[in-house]
Amino acid sequence: PAGGEVLFFPDPAMPCRNGKGCRRNNCTYAHGDTSLIRLLQWLGAAKQTLDVCVFSITCDELSEALLAAHNRGVRVRIISDNDQMATKGSDIERLKAAGMPVRWDKDAAHMHHKFMVLDSRFAMTGSFNWTRAGVLENQENVVILDAPGIAAKYAEKFESLWAAYA
Amino acid sequence: PAGGEVLFFPDPAMPCRNGKGCRRNNCTYAHGDTSLIRLLQWLGAAKQTLDVCVFSITCDELSEALLAAHNRGVRVRIISDNDQMATKGSDIERLKAAGMPVRWDKDAAHMHHKFMVLDSRFAMTGSFNWTRAGVLENQENVVILDAPGIAAKYAEKFESLWAAYA
Ligand SMILES: [Zn+2]
Ligand SMILES: [Zn+2]
Repeated sequence: PAGGEVLFFPDPAMPCRNGKGCRRNNCTYAHGDTSLIRLLQWLGAAKQTLDVCVFSITCDELSEALLAAHNRGVRVRIISDNDQMATKGSDIERLKAAGMPVRWDKDAAHMHHKFMVLDSRFAMTGSFNWTRAGVLENQENVVILDAPGIAAKYAEKFESLWAAYA
Repeated sequence: PAGGEVLFFPDPAMPCRNGKGCRRNNCTYAHGDTSLIRLLQWLGAAKQTLDVCVFSITCDELSEALLAAHNRGVRVRIISDNDQMATKGSDIERLKAAGMPVRWDKDAAHMHHKFMVLDSRFAMTGSFNWTRAGVLENQENVVILDAPGIAAKYAEKFESLWAAYA
């Protein structure tokens, strides 16, 4: 039987920057374990590698978690879609400017994946793009699998796209 | 360790209607095990229930596999997105006309899922919409998990959306 965690969106609110200790009266941000908070915890748990292959990345909280991983020595690599990178709010340029290796598809077809491989052991996939609409508006799902065999298949695809988009 | 199968798109071609016994000279359709053919085999293996929750369904081969399952007594239910249903080529109206129970979201946010639960045992998720572009053009992935615990979580979400979209 597969071990894994399933997350569903939309969340009721974006996470509060003050965390669970927030003392603001009537703070409307989320303080509990939303799906985004769980996903941020997964990114925070990466020790060695994070290979992210996601169509659209515009959610600042997730980009900041990638930057934090990069800054603590995790080898982060990102593949995204060229059409999405041109859209307003894309965080890809910011991540690239921070020294993160980023590649993207060059053609009209969509690099439509939304998967990630974490420490060669965990694989994440689903419908969820890394956007505010994905977090707060749409019906979305993510499954995170503790499954090295499955992770290896996604890692192989990542390497092949990484080479193709060089 | 999770048991499962990972499929990647695009495929080189749509499956040949003549199958592996095709004798057409220079037939340009696919005769081997493409990702779409594997997915059609999964749909063909359903015995009791197929709960399909997919943003966009316009690929005739997949719709026909749903119809075939319905006609052999599998309880097929479909949830899709209202915006997508209005697009040209959507097969949802045809499936509904064939007596298949179909529901859809009523609001502007996207019902963006692309998951399926098969016989309460197998769960499928990933980036893949059931469209020709998904099969032949885009970079897409699907994971099919033999994982009743994970399938139960997707089944619960299916029931809650099914009730919400009544
Ligand atoms: Zn707060
Ligand atoms: Zn043929």
